[in-house]
Amino acid sequence: MEKYDLIIQNGTLVTATEMFHGDLAVKDGKIAAIGQTLAAEAARVVDAKGKLVLPGAIDVHTHLAMPFGGTVSSDSYESGTRGAACGGVTTVFDYPVQRAGGSIMDLINEKKAVLEKEACVDYASHCCITNLNDGAILDEMATAVEEGITSFKCFLVYKKEGMMVDDGMLATLMLRAKELGAMINVHAENPDLIDLYTEQFLREGKTSAWYHYMSRPEFVEAEADKRAVHWARHLEAPLYVVHMADKEGLEACIDAKREGADVFVETCPQYLEFTCDVYKREDGRNFVCSPPMKGQESQDALWQAIKTNLIDTVATDHCPFQSTEKDWGKDDFTKIPNGCAGVENLYPYMLDAANTGKITFPQAVALCATNPAKIFGCADKGSLVVGKDADVVIYDPEKDFTVTIDKMHTLCDHTIWEGKSFHGYPVQTYLRGQLIYDDGDFVGKPGMGRFVKRVPRNNA
Amino acid sequence: MEKYDLIIQNGTLVTATEMFHGDLAVKDGKIAAIGQTLAAEAARVVDAKGKLVLPGAIDVHTHLAMPFGGTVSSDSYESGTRGAACGGVTTVFDYPVQRAGGSIMDLINEKKAVLEKEACVDYASHCCITNLNDGAILDEMATAVEEGITSFKCFLVYKKEGMMVDDGMLATLMLRAKELGAMINVHAENPDLIDLYTEQFLREGKTSAWYHYMSRPEFVEAEADKRAVHWARHLEAPLYVVHMADKEGLEACIDAKREGADVFVETCPQYLEFTCDVYKREDGRNFVCSPPMKGQESQDALWQAIKTNLIDTVATDHCPFQSTEKDWGKDDFTKIPNGCAGVENLYPYMLDAANTGKITFPQAVALCATNPAKIFGCADKGSLVVGKDADVVIYDPEKDFTVTIDKMHTLCDHTIWEGKSFHGYPVQTYLRGQLIYDDGDFVGKPGMGRFVKRVPRNNA
Amino acid sequence: MEKYDLIIQNGTLVTATEMFHGDLAVKDGKIAAIGQTLAAEAARVVDAKGKLVLPGAIDVHTHLAMPFGGTVSSDSYESGTRGAACGGVTTVFDYPVQRAGGSIMDLINEKKAVLEKEACVDYASHCCITNLNDGAILDEMATAVEEGITSFKCFLVYKKEGMMVDDGMLATLMLRAKELGAMINVHAENPDLIDLYTEQFLREGKTSAWYHYMSRPEFVEAEADKRAVHWARHLEAPLYVVHMADKEGLEACIDAKREGADVFVETCPQYLEFTCDVYKREDGRNFVCSPPMKGQESQDALWQAIKTNLIDTVATDHCPFQSTEKDWGKDDFTKIPNGCAGVENLYPYMLDAANTGKITFPQAVALCATNPAKIFGCADKGSLVVGKDADVVIYDPEKDFTVTIDKMHTLCDHTIWEGKSFHGYPVQTYLRGQLIYDDGDFVGKPGMGRFVKRVPRNNA
Amino acid sequence: MEKYDLIIQNGTLVTATEMFHGDLAVKDGKIAAIGQTLAAEAARVVDAKGKLVLPGAIDVHTHLAMPFGGTVSSDSYESGTRGAACGGVTTVFDYPVQRAGGSIMDLINEKKAVLEKEACVDYASHCCITNLNDGAILDEMATAVEEGITSFKCFLVYKKEGMMVDDGMLATLMLRAKELGAMINVHAENPDLIDLYTEQFLREGKTSAWYHYMSRPEFVEAEADKRAVHWARHLEAPLYVVHMADKEGLEACIDAKREGADVFVETCPQYLEFTCDVYKREDGRNFVCSPPMKGQESQDALWQAIKTNLIDTVATDHCPFQSTEKDWGKDDFTKIPNGCAGVENLYPYMLDAANTGKITFPQAVALCATNPAKIFGCADKGSLVVGKDADVVIYDPEKDFTVTIDKMHTLCDHTIWEGKSFHGYPVQTYLRGQLIYDDGDFVGKPGMGRFVKRVPRNNA
Repeated sequence: MEKYDLIIQNGTLVTATEMFHGDLAVKDGKIAAIGQTLAAEAARVVDAKGKLVLPGAIDVHTHLAMPFGGTVSSDSYESGTRGAACGGVTTVFDYPVQRAGGSIMDLINEKKAVLEKEACVDYASHCCITNLNDGAILDEMATAVEEGITSFKCFLVYKKEGMMVDDGMLATLMLRAKELGAMINVHAENPDLIDLYTEQFLREGKTSAWYHYMSRPEFVEAEADKRAVHWARHLEAPLYVVHMADKEGLEACIDAKREGADVFVETCPQYLEFTCDVYKREDGRNFVCSPPMKGQESQDALWQAIKTNLIDTVATDHCPFQSTEKDWGKDDFTKIPNGCAGVENLYPYMLDAANTGKITFPQAVALCATNPAKIFGCADKGSLVVGKDADVVIYDPEKDFTVTIDKMHTLCDHTIWEGKSFHGYPVQTYLRGQLIYDDGDFVGKPGMGRFVKRVPRNNA
Repeated sequence: MEKYDLIIQNGTLVTATEMFHGDLAVKDGKIAAIGQTLAAEAARVVDAKGKLVLPGAIDVHTHLAMPFGGTVSSDSYESGTRGAACGGVTTVFDYPVQRAGGSIMDLINEKKAVLEKEACVDYASHCCITNLNDGAILDEMATAVEEGITSFKCFLVYKKEGMMVDDGMLATLMLRAKELGAMINVHAENPDLIDLYTEQFLREGKTSAWYHYMSRPEFVEAEADKRAVHWARHLEAPLYVVHMADKEGLEACIDAKREGADVFVETCPQYLEFTCDVYKREDGRNFVCSPPMKGQESQDALWQAIKTNLIDTVATDHCPFQSTEKDWGKDDFTKIPNGCAGVENLYPYMLDAANTGKITFPQAVALCATNPAKIFGCADKGSLVVGKDADVVIYDPEKDFTVTIDKMHTLCDHTIWEGKSFHGYPVQTYLRGQLIYDDGDFVGKPGMGRFVKRVPRNNA
Repeated sequence: MEKYDLIIQNGTLVTATEMFHGDLAVKDGKIAAIGQTLAAEAARVVDAKGKLVLPGAIDVHTHLAMPFGGTVSSDSYESGTRGAACGGVTTVFDYPVQRAGGSIMDLINEKKAVLEKEACVDYASHCCITNLNDGAILDEMATAVEEGITSFKCFLVYKKEGMMVDDGMLATLMLRAKELGAMINVHAENPDLIDLYTEQFLREGKTSAWYHYMSRPEFVEAEADKRAVHWARHLEAPLYVVHMADKEGLEACIDAKREGADVFVETCPQYLEFTCDVYKREDGRNFVCSPPMKGQESQDALWQAIKTNLIDTVATDHCPFQSTEKDWGKDDFTKIPNGCAGVENLYPYMLDAANTGKITFPQAVALCATNPAKIFGCADKGSLVVGKDADVVIYDPEKDFTVTIDKMHTLCDHTIWEGKSFHGYPVQTYLRGQLIYDDGDFVGKPGMGRFVKRVPRNNA
Repeated sequence: MEKYDLIIQNGTLVTATEMFHGDLAVKDGKIAAIGQTLAAEAARVVDAKGKLVLPGAIDVHTHLAMPFGGTVSSDSYESGTRGAACGGVTTVFDYPVQRAGGSIMDLINEKKAVLEKEACVDYASHCCITNLNDGAILDEMATAVEEGITSFKCFLVYKKEGMMVDDGMLATLMLRAKELGAMINVHAENPDLIDLYTEQFLREGKTSAWYHYMSRPEFVEAEADKRAVHWARHLEAPLYVVHMADKEGLEACIDAKREGADVFVETCPQYLEFTCDVYKREDGRNFVCSPPMKGQESQDALWQAIKTNLIDTVATDHCPFQSTEKDWGKDDFTKIPNGCAGVENLYPYMLDAANTGKITFPQAVALCATNPAKIFGCADKGSLVVGKDADVVIYDPEKDFTVTIDKMHTLCDHTIWEGKSFHGYPVQTYLRGQLIYDDGDFVGKPGMGRFVKRVPRNNA
């Protein structure tokens, strides 16, 4: 007779397409069986009656311990992944940035060395490429793919910062990625217009956080979205657009999807919940990120696309900075470090949207777990399917929770989500069968997380 | 220790989103457990090594024993459902036609009485409504929904035959269906233009099967598609368009989906495989159906929409007539009984498309099983999920099969699929855990099929 | 040396593409010369310094002495054309309605007999066809075209009234018109939905003028617009959509134009100036017409299309009824005779739009004179071009005018334009060189107007 | 009694909207009168019976005596304008190129000094801006506009050549132009992709003229078209896209027009007549220009847009190089000087299209004369309207003409139009009333041409 390590009984299991009542059994860190009633023994039996049993979320967009804006984002790998665990996220993707002269693999290995010790959940890396090193990087990409790094990001912005990729380099990388079964992610904003507006506003003494938004309005993001999609369609290469925030760019992506292009779209909870009006607040600088939140019309379009399954993933772009750092830009929005916290709020936010009827639970699971795993080749992640990692979240649809900064497990002294109430909240998180979060507390250990070696795409 | 009725071991299970290796256990006709390795006993253990394990297909569009064109379609409920079983279809939907003065429930019950004795697989009914009986039918719809008949079909065509529903009646039915959690299906072609062309062709002595197509070309179908979708969008009522065959109408549906409208699209294997050129064949009349197959551009658009998940279901419109009956229209296409066989070819055809890389296996499963179940409220059908009916097909991806009429289990003396070769073919079909088809032979019994009582939609 | 009958000196001449300073000379009712300075003698010399010299407007949509809604529209041919003259309109098109059993030419000749005596401006006829008389009408259309009747109207509405044309008859007429160098005009609204809503509102006791609008809202018009355009595109036949009032239908027409279809769009001043809110007024029933005015979004779309030259003509649908007749529907909107006055307000309204910068003067001339003449084959009308009829309006751009019913020359006791102020107003109207309107007064004579025999289109 | 300098009698006058029979009288270089029959004396009377009388064409896109590709385009201002005259072009626009450190006005004045002596027809200048000189150019633009230079061109391409304008500079110039009543013209191709492909092809030894096309295919032009239009729409600034050659970019322009954006589109005869297949010819390098001719689908889209009035102008991009210079690139397409002759073929080509029924004569006049004049503020040009310059072409619709290089009046030893036959050809050209071309011969004199001082646009 089968002996399992763990059985979660009597819950309502949720997949990307179904909700059904049953038991879930775990053995050796894997989902071993799903049954109506599993008449088996287990080391640990958990009753999930009245609860939902979900795959752990995958936050495919975080920036941990990231040097940026003259400082370093405030979450270490440890604190960031601890917060992840407490928000039902069992895998995070980091975005290390390769620089001129630098190697992809050296960078990844350096990060892995830290993560091996600190990570509280599993982790994967995209790699931002900013310089081809005379073509050497194109060769190294093959190694990276072999090592499970199958996605690379290009900034279409940050020209002055020396991180921007021009159209020729973008096309080169897209074609190379296609060849390797990898994919290019883009941060799409137009640097020239941003610079033009920024210089104008500073010249005019318009220095508040509001002018951060005004220097990167809808159409400035949309241009770059549309351009990236144009190349993807015509080069027949896959493309993943990160943190989509505007309607016009989104529509270009949707048109491309309909044509059959491999174009994927990510948005973030902040774009779904807040608009640019947040920058008119006294503490608006705390919420400065790029791209900035946009107007209501864009937010409506994002929700519409989510409801009609035309957005693929929701991730956080988690990149917090302390208030004191944000204050550097009190009188000059260009000095505000860009980024906000979010990894701990992703799943609660999207599940609340499901629980209150805006979307369905399977849609929330698809957006936060199943789709990210499929798109980025996490073969063992993202679904409640036998054989996959037992990354599981138990969610109480009746538990009410109001975000306050003291309840957060990440390291930052403020959050844009302060005061936001959720109906329903995760009560337990299991990482490969091990309980790491239990009703408000992190109960795992740094170093439990493992590197997720990803499989290449079929870009044929 | 658990004792199951059946375990299908070692197969690759396919759902609408996943493929994974495992065992599937059945008890009391239900899927009881899915595991990596189920260490349990079972009355029957089947080895599915190297095989795919799929949910049984649901053919949501058949016309069995249907009086039409001066005769009756050649498959009885018994022979039609026997063929279904042998093609991996475990549920068929029939389309009885209410007539002026007639009651929905009387009609359904009459059909159920026959099906109870004859059905070899499970069955459900849509109901075609052709007359409101001064509003009485609107009342009776509530009863029908309670009894699990949650979809009603309107013919936008067949004006002379007294079956056509005008726009006012269509809108009335759409709004009533919305209210009841039901849905309207439409057969969309424009009767006036068909009549116009038909009269002209007969006058001109153009009487061959080709003129059947010429009297109902792309734009004549498209007009009705677009009109139906127009009402659905503006009345905010769900709509299901049956047997979509043309590009322009399809695009109107896709536009509506993108807007968030509850518009669903069905197409049929014949539109995916053949074009109107088939009507130029000597035996073209054998393949006359309405709507007729269209040109290459429409077929390409249908496949493109299938690949991008913008078509929801593939069903057959199974409605065969014998050659001798088809011959009635040898010299006058209007005398050819309309319809073709197909129920036995649906799943093999779509799985062959997956097996040869045109689509994925999960897409084939979604189109033929999961989506039909969800759209039409078959709560216990369509997915390999614990708790659902154990309607299961074992598919051998290496088995080659060429269609010849003598291998078919339905009753017709010819088939449009004659000579078509499939790479991969179903080897076993289980209906609620019972083997009904085994490697070429029907091994079930008439009367095994049960009525599928469907649950209403949430049309909020 | 040339001796002219009339020279209008020193004005600013306006054509559909140009504005330029010059003199215009008339001889024998024709424009004989246009010059910078015409050093010639003339029987009459008029100084137009500071004034605009325009081609007379052509109102291609009027209903004079028309039996409708249980009465007859309140303007006789005499009073209607008198008002036309006083508003700068030198040609009106009437819409006589052929009925089952009736002949086109008998009808036209009957109208011509009256017009010969009464008409104060030139006149042409479209002919509404409501019954093919078993095909006889198709033959008679050839005669009509020879006699200069080159456009025929189909009502897609008024089913109960026996005036509706179904899709088969519409297609038949479109194809026949195409063959003859003629064109079909359509009044596009969907009768079935109107009836459905009307019955519902009456049942619910919702009987005010507002429910006239509610029974024929935007999408009910749009469906018929889209259907008519669908046939025109696919039958490759020209189509003229009268009184376009809604955005969705308009966009279908614009899409078709872009594809190269011969689709023409007319709108009316009432749709450009008023919205459905007018039906909430106490006297709302006075403004009931079909199609009714729509919401702001539709009005905005109409103006946008006018500015981008995507609407072809502006005409009035002049069809006034006295207040006492409108009162019949005080407690039942279905009893309100449908229609409003407008022929005298068309040119002042559109020229005011030009004078206040909303459009250009050449655009106003194109919409009200040049385009109507070209579209409907009035070879001698619509432009200030030598050889054409000297139908000329002198317009004072500085003259202010406020509409009051006592200043109007048509016969109705109220007007929707009451209180509307125009900056700029016509001061003289010449019909083939004869002064017929002079600064507020009609100075012509009934019977001066002549029949405009139109030339067929090249529908190749 | 009036005494004119010239009367052209009995012709069919063609404007952008009308064709009519009449006489045209000229005095002091202006069109003085147009009449049915002008009973006046004249120094010269020309009988135009059976002929068309047209406004002289305006070729808004030529490069005369232009240093490019290591040489200078082969037509001097004299020979280029002589050819213009002989092709019915009475005004040419030149495109001098400002360089870093250079002044607009110095450049224009330098060119004017040459043109004053050499020009055989009237002339105007756009000015290409490649460097803002730290903002000084923005100031100088005001002077330029005052001096009648109201359009400025930006190259979105030629990055390596130091001529490219980035998006920030483009936006700056668009906004400045808008402010001044001027307009930005763009040459839209994406330099990065061109460089990428070019390097690849050279590396692979693919050096023939065909690879010039392959390095700048449809989508590489389209990207830049779409980007330019994006900025124009969102900055609400006017934009003129020169030498449009691809379908996708064209459609973006048309979409913008429909939205109401001030976006204008120019194409060239070479894109309407030839496809990229020309580069497969032995002498393909002779026809290398940028953008290159594209595929059939693009050509079809261009014609469709011309027919539906969605292209505004046709001009030539006249920029010829001798065969010996073209030969420099025999083994390396990057060494071929880019450009082709055309100024003499423009009007014959477009009028032939009218004469053979592809478009109408008024359309040809609008595209080649009236629209260019309006768009670029040539107040005295482009129409047969009294008061405007008497730039007139007499066209014999029955004269057949086959292009051979020896019949051309421009200076180049070959032409892409060699062997092209026209049905109908210009027989006389008048520049401000003076005969400069007569049946095959240039009969004017260098220095007759005058500078056309243009009036600013109303960009409100």
